[in-house]
Amino acid sequence: MPNPTAAMLVIGDEILSGRTQDTNTNHIATKLTEIGIDLREVRVVGDEPTEIIAAVNALRERFDYVFTSGGIGPTHDDITADCIAEAFGVGIDIREDARAILVSNYKNPDVDLNEARLRMARIPDGADLIDNPISKAPGFRIGNVHVMAGVPLIFKSMMESVLPTLTGGKPLLSVTVRINAPEGEIAALLSDLVEKNPDLSFGSYPFVRDGMLGSDVVVRGTDVGKLKQAEQELTRFVEDLS
Amino acid sequence: MPNPTAAMLVIGDEILSGRTQDTNTNHIATKLTEIGIDLREVRVVGDEPTEIIAAVNALRERFDYVFTSGGIGPTHDDITADCIAEAFGVGIDIREDARAILVSNYKNPDVDLNEARLRMARIPDGADLIDNPISKAPGFRIGNVHVMAGVPLIFKSMMESVLPTLTGGKPLLSVTVRINAPEGEIAALLSDLVEKNPDLSFGSYPFVRDGMLGSDVVVRGTDVGKLKQAEQELTRFVEDLS
Repeated sequence: MPNPTAAMLVIGDEILSGRTQDTNTNHIATKLTEIGIDLREVRVVGDEPTEIIAAVNALRERFDYVFTSGGIGPTHDDITADCIAEAFGVGIDIREDARAILVSNYKNPDVDLNEARLRMARIPDGADLIDNPISKAPGFRIGNVHVMAGVPLIFKSMMESVLPTLTGGKPLLSVTVRINAPEGEIAALLSDLVEKNPDLSFGSYPFVRDGMLGSDVVVRGTDVGKLKQAEQELTRFVEDLS
Repeated sequence: MPNPTAAMLVIGDEILSGRTQDTNTNHIATKLTEIGIDLREVRVVGDEPTEIIAAVNALRERFDYVFTSGGIGPTHDDITADCIAEAFGVGIDIREDARAILVSNYKNPDVDLNEARLRMARIPDGADLIDNPISKAPGFRIGNVHVMAGVPLIFKSMMESVLPTLTGGKPLLSVTVRINAPEGEIAALLSDLVEKNPDLSFGSYPFVRDGMLGSDVVVRGTDVGKLKQAEQELTRFVEDLS
């Protein structure tokens, strides 16, 4: 059976303007790979309802899991929850369990839990809450879509509570063989290996060290034996080079 | 007149597996913002022809400019040029000007410019070459799609030759005001500013310093006067806080 698939949707003008370097994608990519879920696509869109809704609907139909980051805070530009509700065609309102979590976070909730912060308790109908150990305001899951915060520390902590709820497949294992030869000189060998190993995937990534071009060859697959065999063949090639 | 729009398409399994952190998006986002081109969407897809072709065609119809990174090297997983040709419905073959550039890069081209490396001279019909000062193998532009290398150093150098060929709009200016108050306490002020300034966009980004939550408010717009005014209003608010 093929591994479950996933897509990531990063929401936020700050990524598209260059102000902020997205790191949540790399984090989730690593985590999903470990548990055998194939991240197949990533999209970044700005704080625009039409764009967010269209992207959520396109991705949730095509992939087993969708994860979003960004836009669930208390300010005017935090519109993700409303867009998700609209994408699913369900209502959205302040929910008591979410409000209770926020209340517990303030010394003086009557004053501190103002109108803006209460927006963080607005949850689409039918969603489950996702725990936020860092700053309390929860994320949520509705259908196959997991809605999380954009701040990397909070995103990571939310992912920790989400990961055990996902059904993974065969973990994608990988070995990397560093070859001190430019890609153009190992391409034929690689093509040969690709042909002989339909169950493995081979990636070749150039690097520069001491002014010399080299290639990191990454072999990925779910079968340890086949992976080892390909590694040996690459290692023999490296030994022949030196 | 609204600013021209753009999309970025990052191509490569290594981004989706978590092996590599994409930084090309952040680079191009910054560069485009400076010259008044609005980056509206980013997609990351793997080394899969159907996915690449579908993404290129979706993006080139919706945006004024499309930029791609990755998949134009000499190895079997470098399939971007073929996918672009297919997306545009044009032929692709080794082109003499591209081959000449590669020849000039090797001391011993008869030996060194092997079959694999020659693949880097395969250019879709009707494309213009994009200069690669670092490792010579050119990128190319066809229609509104600019095809560049994935290695960040090479991507950046290719962007330097592409930037002067683009038609920008009004540069999007921004000011950042750091407020030592959590987002939940400035949300009302922000909503007020948003309502009063339809030509500006306001983003609010939480940070933690010395264990205290604060908010960076970023105001973006093309009109310096309006930007200054919003900045003053935010600064007054900061002064009132202290």
